Amino acid sequence: MQPKFPSDSLTVLTDLVLPGETNPLNNLFGGELLARMDRAASITARRHSRRVCVTASVNHVAFNRAIPLGSVVTVESKVSRTFNSSMEIYIDVWIEDRESGIKNKANEGIYTFVAVDETGRPVAVPPIEPQTDLEKERFAAALRRKQLSLVLAGKMKASEATELKALFA
Amino acid sequence: MQPKFPSDSLTVLTDLVLPGETNPLNNLFGGELLARMDRAASITARRHSRRVCVTASVNHVAFNRAIPLGSVVTVESKVSRTFNSSMEIYIDVWIEDRESGIKNKANEGIYTFVAVDETGRPVAVPPIEPQTDLEKERFAAALRRKQLSLVLAGKMKASEATELKALFA
Amino acid sequence: MQPKFPSDSLTVLTDLVLPGETNPLNNLFGGELLARMDRAASITARRHSRRVCVTASVNHVAFNRAIPLGSVVTVESKVSRTFNSSMEIYIDVWIEDRESGIKNKANEGIYTFVAVDETGRPVAVPPIEPQTDLEKERFAAALRRKQLSLVLAGKMKASEATELKALFA
Amino acid sequence: MQPKFPSDSLTVLTDLVLPGETNPLNNLFGGELLARMDRAASITARRHSRRVCVTASVNHVAFNRAIPLGSVVTVESKVSRTFNSSMEIYIDVWIEDRESGIKNKANEGIYTFVAVDETGRPVAVPPIEPQTDLEKERFAAALRRKQLSLVLAGKMKASEATELKALFA
Amino acid sequence: MQPKFPSDSLTVLTDLVLPGETNPLNNLFGGELLARMDRAASITARRHSRRVCVTASVNHVAFNRAIPLGSVVTVESKVSRTFNSSMEIYIDVWIEDRESGIKNKANEGIYTFVAVDETGRPVAVPPIEPQTDLEKERFAAALRRKQLSLVLAGKMKASEATELKALFA
Amino acid sequence: MQPKFPSDSLTVLTDLVLPGETNPLNNLFGGELLARMDRAASITARRHSRRVCVTASVNHVAFNRAIPLGSVVTVESKVSRTFNSSMEIYIDVWIEDRESGIKNKANEGIYTFVAVDETGRPVAVPPIEPQTDLEKERFAAALRRKQLSLVLAGKMKASEATELKALFA
Repeated sequence: MQPKFPSDSLTVLTDLVLPGETNPLNNLFGGELLARMDRAASITARRHSRRVCVTASVNHVAFNRAIPLGSVVTVESKVSRTFNSSMEIYIDVWIEDRESGIKNKANEGIYTFVAVDETGRPVAVPPIEPQTDLEKERFAAALRRKQLSLVLAGKMKASEATELKALFA
Repeated sequence: MQPKFPSDSLTVLTDLVLPGETNPLNNLFGGELLARMDRAASITARRHSRRVCVTASVNHVAFNRAIPLGSVVTVESKVSRTFNSSMEIYIDVWIEDRESGIKNKANEGIYTFVAVDETGRPVAVPPIEPQTDLEKERFAAALRRKQLSLVLAGKMKASEATELKALFA
Repeated sequence: MQPKFPSDSLTVLTDLVLPGETNPLNNLFGGELLARMDRAASITARRHSRRVCVTASVNHVAFNRAIPLGSVVTVESKVSRTFNSSMEIYIDVWIEDRESGIKNKANEGIYTFVAVDETGRPVAVPPIEPQTDLEKERFAAALRRKQLSLVLAGKMKASEATELKALFA
Repeated sequence: MQPKFPSDSLTVLTDLVLPGETNPLNNLFGGELLARMDRAASITARRHSRRVCVTASVNHVAFNRAIPLGSVVTVESKVSRTFNSSMEIYIDVWIEDRESGIKNKANEGIYTFVAVDETGRPVAVPPIEPQTDLEKERFAAALRRKQLSLVLAGKMKASEATELKALFA
Repeated sequence: MQPKFPSDSLTVLTDLVLPGETNPLNNLFGGELLARMDRAASITARRHSRRVCVTASVNHVAFNRAIPLGSVVTVESKVSRTFNSSMEIYIDVWIEDRESGIKNKANEGIYTFVAVDETGRPVAVPPIEPQTDLEKERFAAALRRKQLSLVLAGKMKASEATELKALFA
Repeated sequence: MQPKFPSDSLTVLTDLVLPGETNPLNNLFGGELLARMDRAASITARRHSRRVCVTASVNHVAFNRAIPLGSVVTVESKVSRTFNSSMEIYIDVWIEDRESGIKNKANEGIYTFVAVDETGRPVAVPPIEPQTDLEKERFAAALRRKQLSLVLAGKMKASEATELKALFA
């Protein structure tokens, strides 16, 4: 299969924070943000693979800044690395100051999706070719994250997780 | 005030159609689409004016194609013309074929927003400078639409609606 | 087909404004109001035609007054004119003062629906016979709106839009 | 206080059943119907009393007919009897056959609301004067229901519940 | 069929009150609470019968305490008595003080569900054997409630409602 | 502060999967499940700390089994370990077979919450004392996960992450 670039699957979901989407502290409710990230990431997975895709795992989401009622929130997701039938999706969340127009990073998250055929069986997806420095860095780190999750799940020996072990050398 | 370009206020809201957002024919419920357009357009108005903005009117929305359950829908909105404190926002809605990745136009809509200050009084917004051919065409047509709505509301004499009259000459 | 009266298709949707339906200014969110109007109008279209009906366009919605949290909102819709398989639906939105019980007009909107058969093809709907002065006035204006939308869409020559041209004579 | 008629507080909430409001059997979800009845009844209580009103109890709701996806549902509520600061509200729910236009009774319910002042203390509401036969019948039965609920709650001796005892004589 | 205990069908639904679930007084909206009770009770009915179950009626719900925004609400439901194919479900609603952790009773409700087969016809459910004092008391009272609802519906003569009549002797 | 047991903060959220909560494959939408886990976990954090708590991160969620429309889903969460002001919350998700009543593990997730005071500053929480074998195992693993997240965030040297390094020895 022809490799693709992360920018081919870039998905942008810009939306408001309305009162029905907040928590009792008047910030965007965490569960609602996780859902928006899931929606954007699943579109990215589909754009990369042109297949039906299902959420396999949420690898990490950091809630660094609360997002107040009335904010403009931009969720941007791209494929960071592929492994046969699975895709790691990297998601950046930005909020935008109304007066200055400046965007600040609020959160980021990493989800994994799997492409499946009509019978629900995993199918191969195109490889990815990172282009920018940030894409390359995330591509490299994705392998360590993959090894880590295999080690933690008992599906890979720690001694074989070469890239990961390097961290502790 | 410094003029702005339509691209400065471009807002992209890409999202899925889930079952809780459909009508009994299994297509995106019209009211839900109108709400998504309103959310995107209000962000565009805010990005152009850097002010609190309120919906003044929906000038036109054409539902040309039904949008089936499971679709990826992209709502794109830009300022098409400004009039003192009001902004006409043009919204294009696209659906994307999963297998080919091709985007087709499904709908379009025109909304008007007004920028207000802390007391709710209208405030001036920056002028707009259209750049592409499509932006220029929409900019020109916006004036006729404005005249038309003034004539229909009895706030302008038909004889003074110069650009509009030209259509019927 | 036997003509019907606008009152035959009158639909009344009275409901509250709860916090989950507001915008950050604590008023009814515009998109939610557009959705309520769409729901009422689609029932009106169905009552007039006794067919499955789909939203064809939103012709105009004016947001004249903000509707605060906690309001009682009444959406009333009736067929204003029919054209073969399409119906123009006129929608009035009222808010009600709790203490005095007085209803004030907050907004109004005009939507167009099309009646379809099982295969999705347009089917003829009964003609309408306006009765009150207001119904007659809206019936007459509907023709000018129809001509206008055909002219703007390039489907009718401006010179043939007799009733519309009269406005500019 | 001037007595009022049940028709003064009649509230009509006509709406569709969309997929997001159904249960897994593709009928209107019971909890959603209870919520719509609560919304209509609270408007009725407010229209009768012109006060802030809170739900005190649901006295009875009978689910006689399932309401399928796509139905047009009409919830109609009126005050059936008042007791100082509380109002019994009777709610009828109808579904409408699309082809014949015939309305059939699907459910009915009885809720009690209390009118309160700014401090949350109960305040007196106007008396009610039933007019139609059905209103008179519901007015009479409301007293027996009131006695019954007082007896069951241990707040009235069964021997003093004159109208209720008559049922068992 | 083997009898079951109320504890076999105990269902616990602990959840927050978020802003999108409140009324304009900033308390849990009554309709939302009725829906949560319906969800818990339907799971209880299914756990007792291992059948598809449908809501037959809401027999009583008392709203004794308002439940403020941000509360932790616990809905607990158990079968209180069975009658052939129907089950009376008793639901207790608790709120929990954040600082002390103490739970207080806020509301209670009684719903009736019916178990049905694939064709929608009622099917027998296992009998219930109350164990605690409270379960026994609710079991006994359920019979009086059943007789009462039959008498009020004109399906039983008052003179035959032995247990109920005893209340008025 | 007095140590607490994981069972002190156990939170159970049992609920249905209704059509409005599904994805286009008719399974529970991933974002909705993430939101339910967030709601349960935030209650657990609050029960352990008796403080206002905010979501700091989602450390891992594995979607092992799709959860079909109509399922009974039980989300159970407990504190697995505490670190000064933060709490790791372990969440198990079960689905229940209607006919056999057997519960199967569908998913699990790990979230981190932080307790804060009125000014939003982190405050210490009580220590935790695991009791069952599973609680002890999760308690131990939580330390490795903590070290890992500090290493990945560049806030701890890999060489100092003693427990984590042991995995790769």
